[in-house]
Amino acid sequence: MKRSRRIGSPSGIVTLTTDFGSADGYVGAMKGVILARFEPARIVDLAHDLAAGDVAGASDVLARAAPYFPPRTVHVGVVDPGVGTARRGLALLVEDQLYVGPDNGIFSGVLELGGDASVFALENWGLWREPVSPVFHGRDIFAPVAAHLASGGDLREVGPAVEPAALVRLRTPEPIEEADDLRGEVVHVDRFGNLVTNLRLPEDARPASVELAGRTLAVSRTYGDVAPGELVALVGSSGRLEIAVNGGSAAARLEGRVGLVVTLRAPRESA
Amino acid sequence: MKRSRRIGSPSGIVTLTTDFGSADGYVGAMKGVILARFEPARIVDLAHDLAAGDVAGASDVLARAAPYFPPRTVHVGVVDPGVGTARRGLALLVEDQLYVGPDNGIFSGVLELGGDASVFALENWGLWREPVSPVFHGRDIFAPVAAHLASGGDLREVGPAVEPAALVRLRTPEPIEEADDLRGEVVHVDRFGNLVTNLRLPEDARPASVELAGRTLAVSRTYGDVAPGELVALVGSSGRLEIAVNGGSAAARLEGRVGLVVTLRAPRESA
Amino acid sequence: MKRSRRIGSPSGIVTLTTDFGSADGYVGAMKGVILARFEPARIVDLAHDLAAGDVAGASDVLARAAPYFPPRTVHVGVVDPGVGTARRGLALLVEDQLYVGPDNGIFSGVLELGGDASVFALENWGLWREPVSPVFHGRDIFAPVAAHLASGGDLREVGPAVEPAALVRLRTPEPIEEADDLRGEVVHVDRFGNLVTNLRLPEDARPASVELAGRTLAVSRTYGDVAPGELVALVGSSGRLEIAVNGGSAAARLEGRVGLVVTLRAPRESA
Repeated sequence: MKRSRRIGSPSGIVTLTTDFGSADGYVGAMKGVILARFEPARIVDLAHDLAAGDVAGASDVLARAAPYFPPRTVHVGVVDPGVGTARRGLALLVEDQLYVGPDNGIFSGVLELGGDASVFALENWGLWREPVSPVFHGRDIFAPVAAHLASGGDLREVGPAVEPAALVRLRTPEPIEEADDLRGEVVHVDRFGNLVTNLRLPEDARPASVELAGRTLAVSRTYGDVAPGELVALVGSSGRLEIAVNGGSAAARLEGRVGLVVTLRAPRESA
Repeated sequence: MKRSRRIGSPSGIVTLTTDFGSADGYVGAMKGVILARFEPARIVDLAHDLAAGDVAGASDVLARAAPYFPPRTVHVGVVDPGVGTARRGLALLVEDQLYVGPDNGIFSGVLELGGDASVFALENWGLWREPVSPVFHGRDIFAPVAAHLASGGDLREVGPAVEPAALVRLRTPEPIEEADDLRGEVVHVDRFGNLVTNLRLPEDARPASVELAGRTLAVSRTYGDVAPGELVALVGSSGRLEIAVNGGSAAARLEGRVGLVVTLRAPRESA
Repeated sequence: MKRSRRIGSPSGIVTLTTDFGSADGYVGAMKGVILARFEPARIVDLAHDLAAGDVAGASDVLARAAPYFPPRTVHVGVVDPGVGTARRGLALLVEDQLYVGPDNGIFSGVLELGGDASVFALENWGLWREPVSPVFHGRDIFAPVAAHLASGGDLREVGPAVEPAALVRLRTPEPIEEADDLRGEVVHVDRFGNLVTNLRLPEDARPASVELAGRTLAVSRTYGDVAPGELVALVGSSGRLEIAVNGGSAAARLEGRVGLVVTLRAPRESA
């Protein structure tokens, strides 16, 4: 069995990322269980308004936010349409952050960032609430396991080690090289209607241009580099190329959605 | 006067359940008042996106979440369309949890769970903010009273004892026995479009079937027991029968809403 | 340089007001940075569902909520459509509360409340995350500066003092006197569809009446003073005249929006 690394004492912080919204009792029930199991826990909401079943969105939230937290923060992700089926529950240590949730791809984004990963399957029901509802593992399995980890409990106690390669992963499209160009696509649309692509710019690529939906855009630095209402291409805060509208929504303007092709053109010699 | 039970020291945790949303200053004002009155308070959001005036929804949130918290957590519920009228403010101890809010039925769900209840009317204005706005008791009465209780203040100081039987209660329809069948109805629709009924299954009822809107469904264990897009009946995480769609919304599929009749059929001998 | 006042030790509380919603990783990234820089920080969400770019709405949230918090709470406001342009970042001490955010008018409401204000421009990049994304100063500048202040760091270390008069301010329309009447307008519409005006009533104004959209309303005390579904004018919890519908939405009823004229009529001698 792979030995879990020990990285200082836990922060006692537990973050929550769910599709439970803020009008039902589900988020509250999880918080109650965590605090009842480990009263000093400090609960931090990451995102609860993900669309129902939007595992990819939750994966994006975790990848964008979790790595900034203090070491050994526990991040619980519960977008879990397969709850109660044969899909496993997992606890992971990726770099210095801990994660708890279903094996359905929700940790794909975090794992893609690279870094050492140790993974364990949740099988030690001694840590769980009894009885376990087959439709709410968030409350009955993930919350108590998170409390166990936040309190400094050993990661290896949750169940047997699993090979990271064996986890369910979301398909992440790779950009395709076409001569000197790079053809990518939109992989996420955020609340502002910004279209986030899978294209990462090389450091020296500023003069490059971007093509999508029949338009060509220069790569700018920030939204305000173009006039209000104009389309702008820039490097977003996650390091990937984004298409936005200054003061508006690129998704609305372009009917842009996940899968829309975006091509990064290498600078041409002027004719 | 009934003597309030003493159940250990307070957790210092204060939860909030409101219809204030997350785009105005109302939630923040309540949090500020609580922390100014009792700085070590640990504030936990349960739900803020309840529909305006949805007392029944808030009652459901509290009943589903509050009992899981550490003893003497203070739960503030503010869905309060009658604010400033003759309706009373209340503080309750139900089992080991404390509650603060208006006497408009918001604690019906919690009281229905059973358990010992002590109730007090909020009349000690010495605990309140001054002056009290007639349209925001959440900030000026409930928040400071919650801070008083979270800090370990005596429940009996908030005002005179009230008989629990005298509280405003929401009508909760009881299922009706029809020969061997049980006729219930939908009492809550959650964010996923799951239709939560007032039907509780006996332990041995798995072979039973469910009828609603001209359809008959077997009782399954979890969403994934049926194909994606199919209707499924199962026992939800609150122990009540629910109708769902695997990966979809039963509310949308069936135009299901509160009041829709759902019948639990006893197993028939095979012919 | 103006000397910043010292008002006791910091509360360690950091509040967040943004237009980031609750379905992306932006709020979580800010929380992670704050906690990584100052682990004992206690993060409190004020509002995250402001419309994209709604600086006026964020200003209203801060003005309604921030003054209630314990002294030296740090309030971070990030509705920042001009991020990465020449607009400055600011840290303010207004009365006993600290504020961090862009110089785009987001602190107008707080400054309008009056009270001593010390303002500093964020120029000390030694406090920031490196590298700074030109599209996410919330994460890379405002969050670490907030952590610095929450931990008791000196306000004057963030950068040079700025004259409060030099800040960007949102236009706040002043009511206009017309004979004995006062003509104001709607300045905010809240989640309930209540129309908040810029009119403040003198203490003795109860018998006054209100005119808007061709209707005349008496000034009532609370929503329940009129029948369900009826329009009501009252003094809202921020001390300003509001138009509401008991159990409904005045915004929907009157197609009311910011800018709608509302006139406060002085009591007339009966003829």
